[in-house]
Amino acid sequence: MSGCQIDNSAIRPIRFFNGVCQMLDQRLLPAEEVWHDYQDYQGVAEAIRSMVVRGAPAIGVAAAIGAWFGARDIETESSEAFFAEFEKVCAVLAATRPTAVNLFWALERMQSFARANLDRSVLELKIGLEYEALAITQEDEQLCIKLGRQGQHLIADGARVLTHCNAGALATAGYGTALGVIRAAVAAGKKISVIADETRPFLQGARLTAWELQRDKIPVTLICDNMAGYLMSKGEIDCVIVGADRIAANGDVANKIGTYTVAILAREHNIPFYVAAPISTIDLSLDDGSQIPIEERDAREITHLGEQQLAPEGVAVRNPAFDVTPNRLVTAIVTERGVAQGDYLQQLKKLADSRTG
Amino acid sequence: MSGCQIDNSAIRPIRFFNGVCQMLDQRLLPAEEVWHDYQDYQGVAEAIRSMVVRGAPAIGVAAAIGAWFGARDIETESSEAFFAEFEKVCAVLAATRPTAVNLFWALERMQSFARANLDRSVLELKIGLEYEALAITQEDEQLCIKLGRQGQHLIADGARVLTHCNAGALATAGYGTALGVIRAAVAAGKKISVIADETRPFLQGARLTAWELQRDKIPVTLICDNMAGYLMSKGEIDCVIVGADRIAANGDVANKIGTYTVAILAREHNIPFYVAAPISTIDLSLDDGSQIPIEERDAREITHLGEQQLAPEGVAVRNPAFDVTPNRLVTAIVTERGVAQGDYLQQLKKLADSRTG
Repeated sequence: MSGCQIDNSAIRPIRFFNGVCQMLDQRLLPAEEVWHDYQDYQGVAEAIRSMVVRGAPAIGVAAAIGAWFGARDIETESSEAFFAEFEKVCAVLAATRPTAVNLFWALERMQSFARANLDRSVLELKIGLEYEALAITQEDEQLCIKLGRQGQHLIADGARVLTHCNAGALATAGYGTALGVIRAAVAAGKKISVIADETRPFLQGARLTAWELQRDKIPVTLICDNMAGYLMSKGEIDCVIVGADRIAANGDVANKIGTYTVAILAREHNIPFYVAAPISTIDLSLDDGSQIPIEERDAREITHLGEQQLAPEGVAVRNPAFDVTPNRLVTAIVTERGVAQGDYLQQLKKLADSRTG
Repeated sequence: MSGCQIDNSAIRPIRFFNGVCQMLDQRLLPAEEVWHDYQDYQGVAEAIRSMVVRGAPAIGVAAAIGAWFGARDIETESSEAFFAEFEKVCAVLAATRPTAVNLFWALERMQSFARANLDRSVLELKIGLEYEALAITQEDEQLCIKLGRQGQHLIADGARVLTHCNAGALATAGYGTALGVIRAAVAAGKKISVIADETRPFLQGARLTAWELQRDKIPVTLICDNMAGYLMSKGEIDCVIVGADRIAANGDVANKIGTYTVAILAREHNIPFYVAAPISTIDLSLDDGSQIPIEERDAREITHLGEQQLAPEGVAVRNPAFDVTPNRLVTAIVTERGVAQGDYLQQLKKLADSRTG
């Protein structure tokens, strides 16, 4: 891994070309903009696990690239033997983080391609898989732009929009989901200001959302997670928009820990609560959100900040990384193929099955 | 100011004897236990402003001691001239922090004593004011113990109790209000475990509540502020108890930012929400919580942790230090004179007027 400085104007946290993947280290932002090079699937798996890259769509993109690295390095002439090895590679990548379904979606897409083309040579499979990984990367930014256009009418001119965590360019191949909707509203000429929850413990809001909105000159005000209720009670928030890590068939939404609390606060204050996520985030195999596995991460994320100790030695900690917001609290779900509202069970299925996107 | 190590077993953040006040620096806990010496009112005012000492009752105690330092150093033989100077001292101390009413209560008590005794000599006034400051200090711990006994029946054996911020020994002269109720429940033989919100940005929960409960061997689990909703949805919290910085006549409660959110979450999950505070926290002059001034503190508390930068340079920040929980969300208010429940307007007035405490 080597470090270099960012200088491109559009924010894209993953660069993939010439057999190398570069990822912006999201643990170091905003203090440092450091890019790491990855050239094998183990490195990519570790980058996902350690949150160099995070955000459900970006994790999917990284996993696809990692899977291609694994595929490229398999040494066999037999397509069947290749596929058996490739499944092992994908299993390693799948075991990195449990909640975001885009990870599994991207790996399944890679495996489906290989499975459907086992009559081809190993070389052809490798070439095809590289194309597939590149396509997943390119498509992700494009669908975010579409998603933004689908959702921007929900955001009124002059709106003060609360967001939680980072569902921005940094959480995707580029442009973002929740922040993509905000970018599209701004592009449509609306004057939008954003209130960003800092989002403990990883501080995606303070470090990432504030950083990328500032870069795009969209007004942003940072608050601690426990301040959103106060601002809502003062009438200072007009709507909420967040991303998602997995959406069950009934519209229950798993997203960054604290999203559920924001949704309850929004309903208490009669404020619309929107979710923006690509179709790949919808998991029709799950009837409801209770079936979504919730990752618990290391205590040290809460007890320490870098080397600085925030809590007494040896204190017990709970660190769930996600929570589930029940569909009744969700005003609408924005996807690249349209907006679901009301009967999510029917509408999400229809959007997922449609080819119009 | 000089530093020395703590070694007493009961936690008392303010020591006052022999004309010197020592305060435990609550900005440095739990990493370091440093005591500072104070010998003039300006030093005490700065300690309150910079949160060396914090917590509404402890601020009241510190202000009383600070007022005495100011009184002691007034050089005049005229009681009238003395009182005019003393009022200026109290005004400086009153201007440190706006929300906690105990500050104003303690200063008013000191001034009332002086006002009622202007026929005495300046020396007698100084002696009397030292006694008054000592009495406020001593009484505060005693009333916390009484308050704990009044409230402990609300906490069931085996309860998992959520608390926000630190309403413990460190927030008072000793024993604590919300944590005093928990200590009393433990003393009554109940098995209690505490879930502590870390309480951004000052991290009173992570740094102070976790520290003092760990010291007293009461099981404590630390979470980020945005995780309480998740734990409630999983049935892992049985009740909530918090302190207060000011309670209006109708039972609206100003307390640490985020308390309002916890109260909404508690009601959403049918979990009792208790407030524990001494009578001196009740401000009968305010009809409701909308009249309580809410302090906004420096942006740097959110954008930095010590020297470490958490957010991009120049980002806009809101940092309200308190919020107001409306009385309809409060299950009961525990004071040293009894528990108010239901018609707060009538009951708080009755408790405040009673002499039984």
